[in-house]
Parts: sequence; structure tokens; C-alpha cells
Amino acid sequence: MIEEALREISRGTAEIIDNERIEKLLKAYFEEGKGYTVKAGFDPTAPDLHLGHTVLLQKLAVFQKYGARVQFLIGSFTATIGDPTGKSATRKVLTKQEIIHNIDSYTTQAFKILDESKTDIVYNDDWLGNMTAADMIALASNLTVARMLERDDFSKRYASNTPIAVSEFMYPLLQGYDSVHLKSDIEIGGTDQKFNLLMGRQLQKAYETKKQQAVLMMPILEGLDGVQKMSKSLGNYIGVSDEPKDMFGKTLSISDELMWRYYELLSSKSLDEIDALKAGVEDGSLHPKKVKEELALEITTRFHDKAAAQAAKEEFERVHAKSQIPTDIEEFTINAESLWIAQALVDCKLEPSTSQARRDIKQGGVKINQEKVTDMNLQLNAGEYLLQVGKRKFAKLRVD
Amino acid sequence: MIEEALREISRGTAEIIDNERIEKLLKAYFEEGKGYTVKAGFDPTAPDLHLGHTVLLQKLAVFQKYGARVQFLIGSFTATIGDPTGKSATRKVLTKQEIIHNIDSYTTQAFKILDESKTDIVYNDDWLGNMTAADMIALASNLTVARMLERDDFSKRYASNTPIAVSEFMYPLLQGYDSVHLKSDIEIGGTDQKFNLLMGRQLQKAYETKKQQAVLMMPILEGLDGVQKMSKSLGNYIGVSDEPKDMFGKTLSISDELMWRYYELLSSKSLDEIDALKAGVEDGSLHPKKVKEELALEITTRFHDKAAAQAAKEEFERVHAKSQIPTDIEEFTINAESLWIAQALVDCKLEPSTSQARRDIKQGGVKINQEKVTDMNLQLNAGEYLLQVGKRKFAKLRVD
Repeated sequence: MIEEALREISRGTAEIIDNERIEKLLKAYFEEGKGYTVKAGFDPTAPDLHLGHTVLLQKLAVFQKYGARVQFLIGSFTATIGDPTGKSATRKVLTKQEIIHNIDSYTTQAFKILDESKTDIVYNDDWLGNMTAADMIALASNLTVARMLERDDFSKRYASNTPIAVSEFMYPLLQGYDSVHLKSDIEIGGTDQKFNLLMGRQLQKAYETKKQQAVLMMPILEGLDGVQKMSKSLGNYIGVSDEPKDMFGKTLSISDELMWRYYELLSSKSLDEIDALKAGVEDGSLHPKKVKEELALEITTRFHDKAAAQAAKEEFERVHAKSQIPTDIEEFTINAESLWIAQALVDCKLEPSTSQARRDIKQGGVKINQEKVTDMNLQLNAGEYLLQVGKRKFAKLRVD
Repeated sequence: MIEEALREISRGTAEIIDNERIEKLLKAYFEEGKGYTVKAGFDPTAPDLHLGHTVLLQKLAVFQKYGARVQFLIGSFTATIGDPTGKSATRKVLTKQEIIHNIDSYTTQAFKILDESKTDIVYNDDWLGNMTAADMIALASNLTVARMLERDDFSKRYASNTPIAVSEFMYPLLQGYDSVHLKSDIEIGGTDQKFNLLMGRQLQKAYETKKQQAVLMMPILEGLDGVQKMSKSLGNYIGVSDEPKDMFGKTLSISDELMWRYYELLSSKSLDEIDALKAGVEDGSLHPKKVKEELALEITTRFHDKAAAQAAKEEFERVHAKSQIPTDIEEFTINAESLWIAQALVDCKLEPSTSQARRDIKQGGVKINQEKVTDMNLQLNAGEYLLQVGKRKFAKLRVD
């Protein structure tokens, strides 16, 4: 059981620091039923969430499956004092009420993934709000300026003479102090958070919290293009409040390679189940498109429900089928004032004879501009037409 | 009057920033009787003060003469939270009670220079102690890391990889904030404080204090050697709690050049009076030693009283006279069981004849080991003797 848990926990991770601690926590859980805590920080500005944001939530859900209580930490302290860095001077200072409102809509989404009964939502202004300047200075004594400037973004900004406000040095310290206050056993975050995540370990040591947190970093999710990170501004995202049909359709649009990546980071299927799917694709018993549909159904069901997902699938198939028009259709131009439809089909080589054409029209197998032809005597006047016989045969006709 | 005041205020200064502000304040004082404030910060650890520390106090006294209230700021905030930089981890955290006790002994000395009725002793933990972490962060947003690292000592330490705790960046900000809180019109400090003094101006601007403080910097006082800065550890200092005789004697030991420097920075004599002394020395009507004695008397009187200073002067003259023994005294060795004093004086070429020697002994003009000889028949046994005739003639005699 522990092995399976460790496999699911390490699944898709970019880096784990102090894996031994995680093993010990799991051992204590499986052998003695002891719980432990996993902290993750969230921004209370409640952006429009997309699947990239849910990678962490999926991992937290895995931890919950294996005995963890999740410390769903809201970084409300910064929001209530405003961002004083000057970088975004216009950022509005949020009241606690506004934050709670934002978080409410956030957690409504999050609890589609997380187990609410195993989640503690905590607001760090509850303890940081009571912190004095003296406490803050004592906290800041735990880190050197040189070490702070090693942080990737700081070092780049310092090197390029982009101003860094002294106050910006406080935020990693505060994030680390949250782990001291919460006595977190594990903290998870994105790879871009490594410095801040390690700060938690360092400060827990300085403040003599009994044990230092393990750190688990998740990679940044690629967007639909499979290259850039998923982001609203790049337009390559699946939003968690997207309509079912968009959610389903966008998922089907990704490459097979990216599909496996999404399975690893976003699916609730176990690694064994995923391995079975992979094997099926490899031995030809499963079409990759079917596997992709299954992923699309899972994701759509998560943020809507099974019925909505199924409806999305059917709608997609209908629309998709409708628009299943080859891109390399042969074009014909016929000079005539008007042209009988059966003759047109023969001229465009879609039918061998006008009699066959009439039979097909009668059976509803002929379309013009994707609309069924019902009038066997239809005359085409000057204009352009997309002719279709059955599912596969197309022609473009210009009459003038 | 304003011109004289400005002259006395700028006397001996290393640098003044915003002299125009000082002129306006003086103008308002002389024309409308309007007061203003001059801030100076002091360390509550109450070191053994020496004259180097009093340079600032002398300048504050000058300001008091021209309408200023002195804001005698005790940096009690840091002392009560301890120095968290790790640089001096063993530094004891002081209680407010201990600080008040220290400051009491400090101000007892300071009020020998300052006018107590024009001095407000203020403790910055009174306002900084109530500051929240959020306030601290807002304060820290007013300065960039790059600007902070321009500070001379920080830049050197950063360049040499000597750790700088992030908390150390807070202190200049707090010192600057004191000026915001106190709405100081002028701040004075040593040249080594320039960065912190300017921080007061910057923060007063950021916090929209009505006007920015002018800054006046005093040089670091040279020690008795005239080269190194006066410091306890270098042993080149005059302590304000030195005994009168040491205070007087140490002052007399300085060079003539340094004497004028001390007049400029330490004397309460006006520039006109000092110019008169200089003129006297230049035209030969005053001996430099007399001028130096006058300085020694002034300093000794300041920290003791007139009678003690006068007594110190007399004691100094007595001891000094007593010990006025040349260093290059001729040495003689005579083999004898014992030697008559008159013969010894002749043998050592101090007297032309034993009869002359006897006459001088009778008149009290002969000394052995700095004690008058009264016994004309004295026999010198084996041993070493310092023989002296009159004030000028010496010999060392070894009888064996």
C-alpha cells in the first residue's frame, strides 16, 4: 500500500525534497493511522481558474486519499495590506469580506477535486495580521540579502537594474513563516515556488518547529499547444468554468503526446489504469481518439456532471460530423443559366447517372451546402454550391 | 544675528544638506520667535562616552542657543528587541527599565553640554513598538534593494561576501521613520550616518510630512594622536568620566594643530574668541601652551568644575615639573664601598669642587633620586643613584 501511495504521490512531480519525510509520514499513517498535514498556498484574488491551476489540487486530492489533511492557505495578509511593491500600484486592497467572497467561489471549484471534509481553509492574516514590526525584523534576521538575491527572479531583476522594493524580500519570509505557524509536514507548489517552499523548511528550523516540511513541486502544465504554459493570455487554456462542450472539444484537440501528459497530471485514474490504456493503444486494441474522449469525459464530468459531459460528447460528434468536410474538394465550373441537380451531380462526377442521383436524392443521401435535398427537380441558378453524396463524396460547383 | 548663527552652526561641519531650510528656520526664529526641532539619535547601550561623542552635543547646544528644541532620540526599539542581525548574537536584550537607567547616566553627562529645558528625551520604541508587520512592509516599500546596497558599508560587505541579514535593511528605514514621526526640522549626525540621515528626508517626502528635514553632518573627531578617530579601543581618547588630572593632561599632550581642531569642534568659545587666540599665537603675544591650557581648563571644567580643573592644572604642573628629567643623562660607575656625596657630585662632573657641592647641598640645590639632600656628610653605599644639581644638571651614578 505504501509503495502504491508513494508512486501516486511522486507521479508527475518535478522535484521532491526530503522524500524520506514523506515516506515516514505515510508509514505512520498506514501502520498507526496517524494523520499529517499538506500545505498549499492560494492567491485570494480569485483569478479565472484553468486546468493549470488544478494540477496542485489533483495532487492534494491524492494526499487526502492517503491520510493527509490539506491546509488550504489563503494569502490574505498581502491582499489586506495591498501590494506595496509599487510594481502594481493600482492593485486594489481587498477587505477581508471581499477575500472571503473570492475564496468562496475558488473553493466551490476546488471542492470538485478536493475532499472538503479533509480540508482546512486558513487565512494567513489571522496570524500575520497580529505580527509586530519587531517580529517581522526578527523573522528577517533569518535570511541574508545575498541568499535572497539568488532567487531566480530577484537575481534577474537585480542584474538588469529593475527595481526590487525592500518589502518584496518580506513575502518569501512570510510564506515560510506560515509553515512555521501551521507546523506543516509537507508543502506543495509549482516549480517556480522552489525558493519560497524551501524558506518554509529553513524557518521551521530557525524557529525550532519539531520537524522540517518536505517539499513537493509540480511542473507547470503545458497549454493546448503542448509547448507554452497554459495561460489565459496565451489563449491555450481550458477554463474550469468553460462550457461542457468547450471543455470536451478543447481536450479532444490536444496531441496524443500531450494527452498522456494530461492523464498524468490531471486524471484521477490510477497509474495502473493509465498503463492499461497505454497498452491498449500500443497493441492496437484501443484507438487513441477513444482514450482522448475518455479523458475529455473525465475532465468535463469533474467540473460539470456525467450527463452534461455525455451531452457535450454527443453535441461534439454531431457538430464535428457536420463539419467533416475534406479540405481538398474538387471544383467544377459549369456555364449555364440553371442546372438540374441530378445532372449537376453527374457533371461533378459524384454520381454515375442521373437515375442513380435521383435514387440517392430520394433516400436523403444528397446534400447541398450541408442541407439535405428533398426536391428531385431542383434547379441550381448561378452561384456556388457544396455538393455531397453520402458521407464521403464532395464537390464544389460554380454555376455561371 | 542670523549670519552669526549660521556661522556657528556651520562651524566644523563636514556637510550640510538643504542649508536653505536651516536659513529659513533661523529667519523665522529671529524675526517671529518661532521654534524648530533638531533631532539626534543616541544608542541606549550607554558606552563609556569620550569627547568624540560630544561633538554632536556641542552642535546641538549651539542650535539650542539659536531657538531649537533638541529631540534627543533614544534608539530603544532595537535594544528592546535585541540586535537580530546575528552579527552580535550575544548582545543582551535590554529591558525598558535598563535602557532608562543607561540613558540616565548618559543624559547626566549630556546635560553638562545641553540645555535640559530645551531638550526632549524621546524613546523610539514608544511608536515603533506599536508598529505592525504590515506597517513595516509598507515602510520597506519605499526603498529598493539596489539603493540600500549602495550604502557604503553594505556595498563593501556585499562585494566581499560578508553576510548582510535582511533585517539590517530595516534599521535605516526605522531611523528615517523616526523623523517622520517626530516631524523633525533638522537632523544631525556623523558623516558615517549620511545614508540614514537622508533616509529621513526621503521618508518624510513619502509620508508627506509637511517639510523635509535639513541634514547636518559632523566629522569624526580625531584622537590624541591627531590621525586615527578617537576611540576607546585605540586608547587615544579623552573619556568624559576621566579624572580631572587625566582630562587636563591628555589635552595638553595634543599637537598645536589638533588643538585648533578641538577648539573648533569641542569649545564653547565663539569663532571670534578663537580667532583672537589664533591672532595672539601668530603675533607671538600668546604662547601656544597657554592656549592649550585654556582648552584643557575649559574641557575639564565642563565635565567636573572650575575648582577641580584648576586643581588638575596645578597638580599637572607639579608632577610635570617633578618628572622633568632629561632622557639622555650621562652615566658613571665608581668602584667604592661607599662614596661621600660631595665627592660623588664632583666625580660625576656636576660640581667643580666639593666645597661648591657642600654650598649647594646647604642651599637645598642637590637631589638624590628626586629627593632633596639635607645631610652634607651623606655616604653613598653600593647602588644606583640619580643625582641632580639645580634644575638642569643630572647624572646617573652606579657605586659598586
